[in-house]
Amino acid sequence: MLLKFKRHYYPFVARRLLQTPLSTTGFIMRKKLLIDVDCGVDDAQAIMLALAAPNVKVLGITCVHGNTNVENVCKNTLRVLKACHKLEIPVFKGADKPILGKGINAGHFHGLDGLGDVPDPDAPGLDLIQKEGAVSAMIRLVDENPGEISLVATAPLTNLALAVRLDPSFPSKLKGLFIMGGNTESRGNTTVCAEFNFVADPEAAFIVLNEYLCPTTIACWEFTCHSKLSWEFCGTWLSQDSEKARFMRQIFAYSMKASESERLKKEFVAGTGLVSCDSYAMAAAIDENIILESDLYPLTVELTGTYTRGMMVMDTIDILKKTHKIKVMKKINLDRFMELMMDSLK
Amino acid sequence: MLLKFKRHYYPFVARRLLQTPLSTTGFIMRKKLLIDVDCGVDDAQAIMLALAAPNVKVLGITCVHGNTNVENVCKNTLRVLKACHKLEIPVFKGADKPILGKGINAGHFHGLDGLGDVPDPDAPGLDLIQKEGAVSAMIRLVDENPGEISLVATAPLTNLALAVRLDPSFPSKLKGLFIMGGNTESRGNTTVCAEFNFVADPEAAFIVLNEYLCPTTIACWEFTCHSKLSWEFCGTWLSQDSEKARFMRQIFAYSMKASESERLKKEFVAGTGLVSCDSYAMAAAIDENIILESDLYPLTVELTGTYTRGMMVMDTIDILKKTHKIKVMKKINLDRFMELMMDSLK
Amino acid sequence: MLLKFKRHYYPFVARRLLQTPLSTTGFIMRKKLLIDVDCGVDDAQAIMLALAAPNVKVLGITCVHGNTNVENVCKNTLRVLKACHKLEIPVFKGADKPILGKGINAGHFHGLDGLGDVPDPDAPGLDLIQKEGAVSAMIRLVDENPGEISLVATAPLTNLALAVRLDPSFPSKLKGLFIMGGNTESRGNTTVCAEFNFVADPEAAFIVLNEYLCPTTIACWEFTCHSKLSWEFCGTWLSQDSEKARFMRQIFAYSMKASESERLKKEFVAGTGLVSCDSYAMAAAIDENIILESDLYPLTVELTGTYTRGMMVMDTIDILKKTHKIKVMKKINLDRFMELMMDSLK
Amino acid sequence: MLLKFKRHYYPFVARRLLQTPLSTTGFIMRKKLLIDVDCGVDDAQAIMLALAAPNVKVLGITCVHGNTNVENVCKNTLRVLKACHKLEIPVFKGADKPILGKGINAGHFHGLDGLGDVPDPDAPGLDLIQKEGAVSAMIRLVDENPGEISLVATAPLTNLALAVRLDPSFPSKLKGLFIMGGNTESRGNTTVCAEFNFVADPEAAFIVLNEYLCPTTIACWEFTCHSKLSWEFCGTWLSQDSEKARFMRQIFAYSMKASESERLKKEFVAGTGLVSCDSYAMAAAIDENIILESDLYPLTVELTGTYTRGMMVMDTIDILKKTHKIKVMKKINLDRFMELMMDSLK
Repeated sequence: MLLKFKRHYYPFVARRLLQTPLSTTGFIMRKKLLIDVDCGVDDAQAIMLALAAPNVKVLGITCVHGNTNVENVCKNTLRVLKACHKLEIPVFKGADKPILGKGINAGHFHGLDGLGDVPDPDAPGLDLIQKEGAVSAMIRLVDENPGEISLVATAPLTNLALAVRLDPSFPSKLKGLFIMGGNTESRGNTTVCAEFNFVADPEAAFIVLNEYLCPTTIACWEFTCHSKLSWEFCGTWLSQDSEKARFMRQIFAYSMKASESERLKKEFVAGTGLVSCDSYAMAAAIDENIILESDLYPLTVELTGTYTRGMMVMDTIDILKKTHKIKVMKKINLDRFMELMMDSLK
Repeated sequence: MLLKFKRHYYPFVARRLLQTPLSTTGFIMRKKLLIDVDCGVDDAQAIMLALAAPNVKVLGITCVHGNTNVENVCKNTLRVLKACHKLEIPVFKGADKPILGKGINAGHFHGLDGLGDVPDPDAPGLDLIQKEGAVSAMIRLVDENPGEISLVATAPLTNLALAVRLDPSFPSKLKGLFIMGGNTESRGNTTVCAEFNFVADPEAAFIVLNEYLCPTTIACWEFTCHSKLSWEFCGTWLSQDSEKARFMRQIFAYSMKASESERLKKEFVAGTGLVSCDSYAMAAAIDENIILESDLYPLTVELTGTYTRGMMVMDTIDILKKTHKIKVMKKINLDRFMELMMDSLK
Repeated sequence: MLLKFKRHYYPFVARRLLQTPLSTTGFIMRKKLLIDVDCGVDDAQAIMLALAAPNVKVLGITCVHGNTNVENVCKNTLRVLKACHKLEIPVFKGADKPILGKGINAGHFHGLDGLGDVPDPDAPGLDLIQKEGAVSAMIRLVDENPGEISLVATAPLTNLALAVRLDPSFPSKLKGLFIMGGNTESRGNTTVCAEFNFVADPEAAFIVLNEYLCPTTIACWEFTCHSKLSWEFCGTWLSQDSEKARFMRQIFAYSMKASESERLKKEFVAGTGLVSCDSYAMAAAIDENIILESDLYPLTVELTGTYTRGMMVMDTIDILKKTHKIKVMKKINLDRFMELMMDSLK
Repeated sequence: MLLKFKRHYYPFVARRLLQTPLSTTGFIMRKKLLIDVDCGVDDAQAIMLALAAPNVKVLGITCVHGNTNVENVCKNTLRVLKACHKLEIPVFKGADKPILGKGINAGHFHGLDGLGDVPDPDAPGLDLIQKEGAVSAMIRLVDENPGEISLVATAPLTNLALAVRLDPSFPSKLKGLFIMGGNTESRGNTTVCAEFNFVADPEAAFIVLNEYLCPTTIACWEFTCHSKLSWEFCGTWLSQDSEKARFMRQIFAYSMKASESERLKKEFVAGTGLVSCDSYAMAAAIDENIILESDLYPLTVELTGTYTRGMMVMDTIDILKKTHKIKVMKKINLDRFMELMMDSLK
């Protein structure tokens, strides 16, 4: 089945597909991405998607608490960059706690260290982390590239919330925002009704959905479940003969095993499979045409519910009279998505 | 299309279909129903479904605030009984307010009087309402028929909540409970995230879902929308040449028109059509075999959310560790349902 | 000091003091009280205050969950009546749970059985409890004595909340309502910010403060602490040579000991001492002139706070624009109060 | 009365009074203060207290939304510095909104511009505001003076909350923190139960009370009311013949008039008078010996209450098991306080 992904015609066709603009000098203008991660295995997959995309330039990666503590997130991000031979991309350390200061248990789906608990003795050291803080760097980079940067957030949104509070004009200087997080049908994967990235910092999610008025696209939990890839594809994907694929096989083993647990089976809406959540938001940032169907709704976040704190709220009946609407992904071009995934481990 | 509903073989086949037990003396034992309503048009449709079902005996109808105030609900219930020539069924007046005392605006989907604002000068008077209160009557009737009564609740659950608080053993003496209310995917029809019957008295819904440990079946908002009947069927249904159909045509005109409004179109999940919400719970009470697919989940209600107060909470990942699970209707035998609907206006 | 309580001039002076009206036939009209209790030791003290007051007629005592379960409350109430030779007063069993169904731990300040864990082998049996339920009896008694009954509530307000929901006209037929519960300065004795009677059923307290529009007087936690009696008085009070005093010595020993614990010392605002909370509300019902100072404020109850659920809310700056104001006791005639207390054990 | 405040003996006596340490070189070591304000009239009074204190060095003033928008706060602060001839003190602009982004109405107690609506045509321009942001400056200044700076916060605590989220070690590098805000007895001055500075950013107050583990002293609303100065003193204070006093007369006229309104009279606990709220926190920072009585309690903030959101929560009965306790001011040396006030306008 994957044979149809032959790519020898690239970049002629791809340029059209990806709508990558030619600059006036004839060079391909690459999309500038800033990536905010809590680098667990799914973030790693998303980062690798971006690093492999020829139309994308990653200006920096900012780290935040989430799947594991922010120190581990920094280390994991460096390991991913090393596996991709891209250690020149600057990595910044951000918030170690959610806005209110009280973290939740990440549940260790990706292992205690967030990257499958397969330590690398030759992993890059934290001395490679930039001295500048993540929030400061986000503001600076966007100031240096006004209107050009797409921010891809695949983690609790603490850094983004702090950025807009420190610089209210920050969102307006973004080209776009792509988020993995939240849920559309109250199907929780961490608490009864809430998805991990949102419930790990509900206040941050609230701030971002209400104050980032730039064009925003969101890949929510149920959507990613409904867009899962088969274990068969996963096998093909992982069995590629490459350094990246070997790295992914190592770090992904833990989560694949965890997927078989009874609890995880309940979490996954519509059955398990390869649900690389963060990669859907990244794929949309790389190639917006990959979105085949979406809704435009005002979104916010429940902060005070007993069972629903952190749940994304989608105002389908326009009760809140909000003008800012967010593109909620409903259907993705799975062939194209698998293509991006395959390329990411090549 | 409806020709396939030929019923000349009834009751021989029906008895099997309906699993109506023969009593030891050879007579058909009829199901004993107690119906709790906030008699708007959809409650009227549900009541008429029950009154027309040959295997059902309605022991009483209890009234509660909801679509309109409890006095109107009493009047409307009497008008329905009159249209069906069943004024011998006792009607009881219940709570005029939700548990916390602060009602919400019903939005008048069914007209100001709840029954399409087509007053009947010959309507029965409130003197026909029983002197005994609804809650007291519920407790007494169930005491007199222990284990035999199915309670069908198509309204805010205030009366049921008061009944269990006054008599903690009340739920255990029911045969079963059938509820129309709540939602499974956070699609609100009254507030952003909540369905009318639940948000009209969240505390009552909370009490009932947590303390009625009898076998319970629930028809939630999204399910009823997904199970809507076509306007074509609606036309056939209403154009029957009968007193009941004429009555329904009159009282239903207002709501049918309202369905065309922009707001209502947003409320209805998956497009409009004939969504006789309350009739789904009643149909299940009349004939449990009508349910083709269902989930069993612990349910509760969010009481404290800013956007989610009154939202039904479905614990799909077993966070709450509750042992009592409720049958959540997912798919109904639509042919059988249309049959019951057609019969109800014959 | 107590010598000044000589009462040989009674009833001539007392009639004036107590403002007990003479009926047209020249007989003293006694105040009709209905008492709602969760009979712990302090309720017992309050009941005995009423039973000893010559100007009072107790029409009935209704029981509710609180200091202990409702069965114990019934038993304890019967024991108090027996000790006072008043078993002819009817006792009714009410709600066994708060409105939302989830009780809190009473902390056993008055012992596991609520009455100091000194069981009486000759205690009256539960067969003496009336068949009629408490809420039904409250409604009936008030219907039979419209405008004449003062309701004294020294427990979680569940029964009162149910009464107004079943009969919305119930509060308007009361002469007055006297409550022990709530707090005025966020000094909690059970949770961080809430007083026991209120936090044991916040929804009931909310309903009563918002829907009982009859003249209402409340003795809150901080007030009772500031109005404590000295241990010296307590000694004199308990050492009276009477059956009642002997009974009180027995049941009160446990709580007196408990008062010395570190936790209890923190709970009591302004130091410990004899804080017979419930007796202050009862004293005001017996003799309103005992109140020397009070505020009139709109009151309500916080239902949704993380730390403040169940806290009484006093709207001193008129934000809520409520017209119904409640008399909040600030200062009591302590001499008169001690007199009533002394008499209660005579 | 004020004659006793003669200060010609200074600094010999004052040094002892103020416990100002002599450095090893014999010079008086001045206390280093960083002041965070939403510069309304009361902040102006507090700032002037600090500027006049000989034992104090103000390293900078950070501005935040509150009494008025942050631009006005910046302007007002510059005007105060100009009136005191201290424009060399750097002023930094901070957050323009509370953490969650939704401001409350300040009610304009201090006028629309926060400084009595008496514009100064020669006011310093915003170009005097530092380029560096307030939060960045706070972190830098404290880094440059580890363990030496006392932070005085007389505004919504947004800047402080952001500082600890950006630099988790920030609080541990402070010498101390002095806050005006919150309430101890649920007496609200802005909402039913909450004080302005806290309810203007409840999340920030929560973060600061829970994460600033440095020695912290708080002057709450009720305390400041109970410590009010007489209007007579106010007259003497304002009638001093100085530039500063003339400035204060101008900007204070609006608030003094407002104090006479019915609403304001209700807000002030224990009657009106000169309640220069922010000055109490500043006075404690200048001279801790001014505090005659205080409590040590764990504090937090209610975030989710309907009536109590933003209310300070004081855990008097140790329910929360928090080890960090905050000094809650109860009684101040009013003579010394009046002395500081008088000096501030000299």
